[in-house]
Amino acid sequence: MTVTYDDVARAAARISGHVLRTPVLEVSPGLILKLELLQHSGSFKVRGAFNRILSAGELPAAGVIAASGGNHGLAVAYAARALGVRAEIFVPEVTSPVKVAGLRALGADITQTGAIYAEAAEAAAKRRAETGALDVHAYDQPEVVAGQGTTGTELVEQTGGVDTVLVAVGGGGFAAGITVGTSTAPGDGGGPRIVAVEPVDIPTLNRALAAGGPVPVPVSGVAADALGASLLGGLAHGILSGPRVRSVLVTDEAIVAARRTLWERHRIAAEHSGATAYAALLSGAYRPAAGERVAVVVCGSNTDVTTLA
Amino acid sequence: MTVTYDDVARAAARISGHVLRTPVLEVSPGLILKLELLQHSGSFKVRGAFNRILSAGELPAAGVIAASGGNHGLAVAYAARALGVRAEIFVPEVTSPVKVAGLRALGADITQTGAIYAEAAEAAAKRRAETGALDVHAYDQPEVVAGQGTTGTELVEQTGGVDTVLVAVGGGGFAAGITVGTSTAPGDGGGPRIVAVEPVDIPTLNRALAAGGPVPVPVSGVAADALGASLLGGLAHGILSGPRVRSVLVTDEAIVAARRTLWERHRIAAEHSGATAYAALLSGAYRPAAGERVAVVVCGSNTDVTTLA
Repeated sequence: MTVTYDDVARAAARISGHVLRTPVLEVSPGLILKLELLQHSGSFKVRGAFNRILSAGELPAAGVIAASGGNHGLAVAYAARALGVRAEIFVPEVTSPVKVAGLRALGADITQTGAIYAEAAEAAAKRRAETGALDVHAYDQPEVVAGQGTTGTELVEQTGGVDTVLVAVGGGGFAAGITVGTSTAPGDGGGPRIVAVEPVDIPTLNRALAAGGPVPVPVSGVAADALGASLLGGLAHGILSGPRVRSVLVTDEAIVAARRTLWERHRIAAEHSGATAYAALLSGAYRPAAGERVAVVVCGSNTDVTTLA
Repeated sequence: MTVTYDDVARAAARISGHVLRTPVLEVSPGLILKLELLQHSGSFKVRGAFNRILSAGELPAAGVIAASGGNHGLAVAYAARALGVRAEIFVPEVTSPVKVAGLRALGADITQTGAIYAEAAEAAAKRRAETGALDVHAYDQPEVVAGQGTTGTELVEQTGGVDTVLVAVGGGGFAAGITVGTSTAPGDGGGPRIVAVEPVDIPTLNRALAAGGPVPVPVSGVAADALGASLLGGLAHGILSGPRVRSVLVTDEAIVAARRTLWERHRIAAEHSGATAYAALLSGAYRPAAGERVAVVVCGSNTDVTTLA
């Protein structure tokens, strides 16, 4: 099972009007920020949520259910409210108070349980077996990956194409979707280099590539509430094992510095996960060649702004 | 003396590469935010600053001098640093600590004096008579108005044109520049309606239109450090007296609510002045007709983010 460019193109048509066409900002010649953090619900996650729900046909009476570190839950709750559907969201204890408050404001039924995402996901699966609600997975469903991939097609339209895209990886759905959405030939025959950036303390992709398949990793650090999947998605593994993808790790210190720089230099208020791709550039973990056109996806803004002061 | 569309077009060519092409974001059908707050130095003011300095030919040894509520000073200091020129900036006591810290970080010589902008401007004029530095006025110079107007030409390019532009007014240079920059025929023969929005407690344009010319007004309220000119510029008066402009007032409460909504709904961290134009829409002070395409210029982000929490 995989996701094709046509799946992404169909997703783009399906979710059009429900999600924002987020802007790009060229902050210096050849360095483009894709401001996906200005998306509805504060992250790219609504793209996959709308695509999954709108693809499902008639929905069960119990509505939709999702487990999430926070952003995916916010997105599912946002999409469910927009479509008039019930939403039940499971989040772990690591989820930031800002995100829990946001979920409440959106009127979702929330259960906060388990230390990390994987435990909340287990509880959600159990609950789903009882209610029959539609499961909207945080990263490992074709409709979700295709929806997230619309960020990639949009980026290509807005920029006319770039040499390289830097994107953060948690469960890998977003990076996988963007890899497909930016491909220029069927079967991943071409397209920009995808620099898939992870915190050094949550190396789900990095380990999976080394091991030849997803392996559980421990989860910790400043971006754990958004990039805190212990296991890379199977779909993502298939796609991110391709020749266009390079795995890069960054320290928490680099993430914190990148988040601060985004605010101080560009007045962009990102959460730590949202600054993770930019951290690879600022820290030198990824060094573009002279003249290389680079896009950095800034993907989440559900943050406690007082920590930016 | 006035500013023509050709002046704005020449300014756009002159400052290109020095300023950012700030993005637009269509947040709902027909409602476009022009994110000028993501501009270098955190506001549109760099456009006018670069245009004034780059138009001056050889600069005096003393460099440039400016009086400012804060944003103009940050812009002049930013432009001066980029061009390798000395900058001396006078700001009043009302200037926010965030802006004073920003000025220090840019390496400008700062003098904080006087209660409001007009008093700092007086001190700057005195100092300029001693040093011979190039005066970069905050709003009432043709090169400054033409520079700010490039926001308007850019907006038209990005949107294909809108019916209405909402823009905040302090000394009026920005609104005047945008009026000229969005005009579609010589001599202001056509173009979008310009809704010029001011805090009810700093009605420089509103009073000037009623009196038939600029009259001093008292200055107070949440946006006083950015929209706190006591007197409308003469250039601005000439341009904003035209048939396309409508003057609208908003309360401080509406400004505070608009700033909060920009953050909570759209993750845009504006200062109060930056949210003033949006306040006219949210509060109903300006009500678009059905189907009217409206652009709101969100123009400043030099704010204490902790107040957004």
